[in-house]
Amino acid sequence: MEFIIHNDCFNKAISEVRKGISSKTPLSILMGIKIVVNKESVILIGSNSDIIIEKRIPLMIDGVNVVEIVETGSIVIPATYLSEIVKKLPSNIHIKTNEKQLITIQSDEIITHISGLNADDYPRLPDIQHNIFVNIGSNELVELFKQTMFAASSNEMKPVLTGVHMTFSDDKLVVVATNSHRLSKREICMKMGVKASIIVPRSSLQELAKLFADSDEIKLFISNNYIVFQSKDITLYSRLIDGVYPNTTGLIPKESKTRIRLNTNQFLKGIDRACLFASEWRNNNVNLTIVEGDKLKISSLASEIGKIEETQLMRSIEGEKELSISLDGSFLMDALKIINEEEVMIHFGGSMSPILIQPVGNPSFLQLISPVRTY
Amino acid sequence: MEFIIHNDCFNKAISEVRKGISSKTPLSILMGIKIVVNKESVILIGSNSDIIIEKRIPLMIDGVNVVEIVETGSIVIPATYLSEIVKKLPSNIHIKTNEKQLITIQSDEIITHISGLNADDYPRLPDIQHNIFVNIGSNELVELFKQTMFAASSNEMKPVLTGVHMTFSDDKLVVVATNSHRLSKREICMKMGVKASIIVPRSSLQELAKLFADSDEIKLFISNNYIVFQSKDITLYSRLIDGVYPNTTGLIPKESKTRIRLNTNQFLKGIDRACLFASEWRNNNVNLTIVEGDKLKISSLASEIGKIEETQLMRSIEGEKELSISLDGSFLMDALKIINEEEVMIHFGGSMSPILIQPVGNPSFLQLISPVRTY
Repeated sequence: MEFIIHNDCFNKAISEVRKGISSKTPLSILMGIKIVVNKESVILIGSNSDIIIEKRIPLMIDGVNVVEIVETGSIVIPATYLSEIVKKLPSNIHIKTNEKQLITIQSDEIITHISGLNADDYPRLPDIQHNIFVNIGSNELVELFKQTMFAASSNEMKPVLTGVHMTFSDDKLVVVATNSHRLSKREICMKMGVKASIIVPRSSLQELAKLFADSDEIKLFISNNYIVFQSKDITLYSRLIDGVYPNTTGLIPKESKTRIRLNTNQFLKGIDRACLFASEWRNNNVNLTIVEGDKLKISSLASEIGKIEETQLMRSIEGEKELSISLDGSFLMDALKIINEEEVMIHFGGSMSPILIQPVGNPSFLQLISPVRTY
Repeated sequence: MEFIIHNDCFNKAISEVRKGISSKTPLSILMGIKIVVNKESVILIGSNSDIIIEKRIPLMIDGVNVVEIVETGSIVIPATYLSEIVKKLPSNIHIKTNEKQLITIQSDEIITHISGLNADDYPRLPDIQHNIFVNIGSNELVELFKQTMFAASSNEMKPVLTGVHMTFSDDKLVVVATNSHRLSKREICMKMGVKASIIVPRSSLQELAKLFADSDEIKLFISNNYIVFQSKDITLYSRLIDGVYPNTTGLIPKESKTRIRLNTNQFLKGIDRACLFASEWRNNNVNLTIVEGDKLKISSLASEIGKIEETQLMRSIEGEKELSISLDGSFLMDALKIINEEEVMIHFGGSMSPILIQPVGNPSFLQLISPVRTY
């Protein structure tokens, strides 16, 4: 195997596939990047137990030659060393392997030798059927996951809740995540004519959001145990979480006693300030109270240290004008941060019922937060 | 005590004095910021066992009113809460205390109450005699310390070596730091007519470098147990380290077998690359060898993993043309990073003698690094 590659381009590819590589793995071959050189491209692969990232570098990018292939072949190179050395090399990089898996990396007067591993020992990529499932804009897909995945659980005791539930039906995709105390649900219209219900690890979707930030369109496949996202030059395979996701439809309240409309950003800033003392509590308690009929008082109290309170004018209020509820301030902040709309509508069902948060003008997105008990 | 202060200005002052506050201190009052309000200014004080930072905010800055004093007085406010809340307040900040040390912080519709502490319980500032010792440009002073303090020891077993030694004589100031394996020494001309020899904790000088980065001129005082640095609005008091600093003059070799001249930046980059495998060794071993009479080979080797080598053309060589030495690559990088000059001269006394590094054209600055044994 032998090729010469443009420095920047190789650096970028290495840093992309490294996102798939865990530094803690009992399989030493998975600490490496697999490099496959064929006549048309150089392919880099990095993987861990959850995801596989495959990056393809073609011979030319935007009319510029970036790769020159001397001899095809494949090898696995320790990811940390490859990444560190390539970052520090001044110009084009010449990589060559011999039959003993010894790799020579040269750039100008600088010569490095690293021991590689046999590419045949690297786990095989899962097979995917190439019947395209659906095409989707990357911005839309990334937003869909950003608005839901934060609500998933971090507790490994209930593995299904650590993932994000995706339900494909005839004309829409519904994405839900919950940790039992809060829930986020987002729908998008999508014609695909296939039904499926899968649970994807949150960690995979976090990598997706970073990897595909500047892609145009993404192809989405589902195979037996994998979901696959593919842009022009990157493919991300994520394993699925086994199990049955709880039915969350019944959790969403149909009625409310009080509905208030607020400026999203102003409310977020108020909650952020109230969290100052809230962090002294186990549940980051922040209190919301309706005062004088048209104002919302946001307050928190840590009796030993101090208290903070402010009142904000509501944009509108419907239903009962009496309300006092305690919520986890950090959940509220997470919920408000990922709303793009200027206004939010909050539905209250009483001090012991979950609140429902919806951006005004976007019925496809809703969030629930359960109240906390105060003692 | 009561005053109204401009948001940005208060924020900046809090973040400056917080640098002096340790989050781990058995004295809870030292976790607070002391605020003293007199008729002309608001003064903030933060301190730990090593340093005290005093910041003075005058009523006007650049012709703009930033403070309005309602009532003079003093209080100690928990630093973390004060800092967090002030960052998040939208406009001018109104601070008021009552006789029970309860503090009210108000900005627009936002009201916070925090319990304060009695300012009389805060440790007193050390007395300094106001006979000005010396005036010095802040850039010059900060550079002087940056070029030396990194070489001090991190090992608390020899406390004097964790500090930086400052020797004031009739016409110059000599600053030295060493950890027994490397040494950095810098001199500047300075007329002051007083002799003194003190050891200043490295941590204090690190804070100094941050605090006085954009000051013009600094006044420097020395009292019994303190060195004091004072700009227009900030005063930094640092305690001194007790003890006798070793005589380092004898360590500096007077003769050398080989002297080579190199491009500083190119040499630094080469050492950086060689450190790739050097980190596998206990001492970050990097080898320097003269080859072909006019080239320097930089190499490192971790037999299990790989090796890296490169050759650089030397700008000049004097003396013996045979040399092979092993050095701690991270020490070499530290030494080269703080040299501003384009070229360095390196003096070698043999493979077991320390090397001497001097910027070409700057005889006031020198560094020593001891070789490491290779097995």
